[in-house]
Amino acid sequence: MTADVDARAAALEFPIPDYANPPYGGRYGRLKATHRIGSLLMLGGITPEDRQGNRVTTGRLGQQVTTADGYRAARRATINALGMIQYSVGSLAHVKAPVRCLTFIAATDDYDEHHLVSAGVSDVLLEVFGEEALCAQAAIGVSSLSNANTLELWMDVELHDDAPASR
Amino acid sequence: MTADVDARAAALEFPIPDYANPPYGGRYGRLKATHRIGSLLMLGGITPEDRQGNRVTTGRLGQQVTTADGYRAARRATINALGMIQYSVGSLAHVKAPVRCLTFIAATDDYDEHHLVSAGVSDVLLEVFGEEALCAQAAIGVSSLSNANTLELWMDVELHDDAPASR
Amino acid sequence: MTADVDARAAALEFPIPDYANPPYGGRYGRLKATHRIGSLLMLGGITPEDRQGNRVTTGRLGQQVTTADGYRAARRATINALGMIQYSVGSLAHVKAPVRCLTFIAATDDYDEHHLVSAGVSDVLLEVFGEEALCAQAAIGVSSLSNANTLELWMDVELHDDAPASR
Repeated sequence: MTADVDARAAALEFPIPDYANPPYGGRYGRLKATHRIGSLLMLGGITPEDRQGNRVTTGRLGQQVTTADGYRAARRATINALGMIQYSVGSLAHVKAPVRCLTFIAATDDYDEHHLVSAGVSDVLLEVFGEEALCAQAAIGVSSLSNANTLELWMDVELHDDAPASR
Repeated sequence: MTADVDARAAALEFPIPDYANPPYGGRYGRLKATHRIGSLLMLGGITPEDRQGNRVTTGRLGQQVTTADGYRAARRATINALGMIQYSVGSLAHVKAPVRCLTFIAATDDYDEHHLVSAGVSDVLLEVFGEEALCAQAAIGVSSLSNANTLELWMDVELHDDAPASR
Repeated sequence: MTADVDARAAALEFPIPDYANPPYGGRYGRLKATHRIGSLLMLGGITPEDRQGNRVTTGRLGQQVTTADGYRAARRATINALGMIQYSVGSLAHVKAPVRCLTFIAATDDYDEHHLVSAGVSDVLLEVFGEEALCAQAAIGVSSLSNANTLELWMDVELHDDAPASR
């Protein structure tokens, strides 16, 4: 996980959003993007929205949303999470390893492919941080999410010891 | 976040419950209120119950419970969480910052105002710990909760380095 | 929590699975079993499956699955979690204390005994690590889980300071 992480991130299907301008918190109200304790950086929940906060994927798996669309939404939420990390510590090169990823997926009672949706999370992390960057994971079917979003990602990463102070 | 946090907490709509007497664990069975590792204090799930353990808000958002009632329930669960912190380390003045708040909300499939419910969590934290005390957040619609509770809060806070040993 | 933890673990209803052979990650694809930062060991989600990955309990509480069966499934998932800890640090004797357990339970809208299901988690932890080994907890009703599993456990434990490096 050297600095060429930025080059790999640039090859993703969307540019990593810049949450500094306008600031992350300004649009979302009274919450913050991340909290860091030591080398553990904990991210707030992030959805597959665009930088302007418009919802990109709404509806439920097993109903209006296909597993393939859910996978794409998971990738987009993960790319947004990368933006939250950049916003917090300045560069993805400060990430030592993904820690744990919990994907909340709006899904019907009989949907059973949650793991194929959350594969979008792990795939983005592996593409950006390298083939060793496995994440401990779970994917959970929820009844509904804020603003009818299809999924929300809850993620932790470990930073290198010399990562600069976060904001 | 100086000691006047206690004065601000006293202005909340309910007194912060004293989980020392009877002890938190006694009523809830075989679980503990919090676990601390270093400066990270992790709280067990807490519902909008009263100190005697009676449920205050039951039912689901989008069905029997309005968003306004959900917001009030979220505030109450948060006030209870403050009691868990007091029980654990003796005083809210030992809190350096809220870390992350995950609000589980019993909600129908088409409910979409989870964020307006969990605003009750952030509002209480800001009122008590000050306007800088933002929390990283997510709010999730679940199918059901123990004893038909309307919501459950899953929270972490960071303690000051000199906070006393927790119980 | 001395080394006799292994003797107590041997008295459980199932042997603790050996996730080293075949390796945990090999079957589950691109994820890892655990991540450790300092003394905090965070486990990925684990279901009540057998060592070969066959599902042991499927369906939802309040529908096809009774609370008693859910309790047994929670015990099995917890025994599997013990296997993940052994895989990660070699022995359960390195566990200082359970930290926090979040149990995701596939459940209908009107199911309300989630806490009786997740009691299976705390019971196993207390049987293995001793009567002081309480866990901070929550149990959440979800709409559905990967592969129609009935529950999934999301757990953290604290390791002794001298625990060996994890994998």
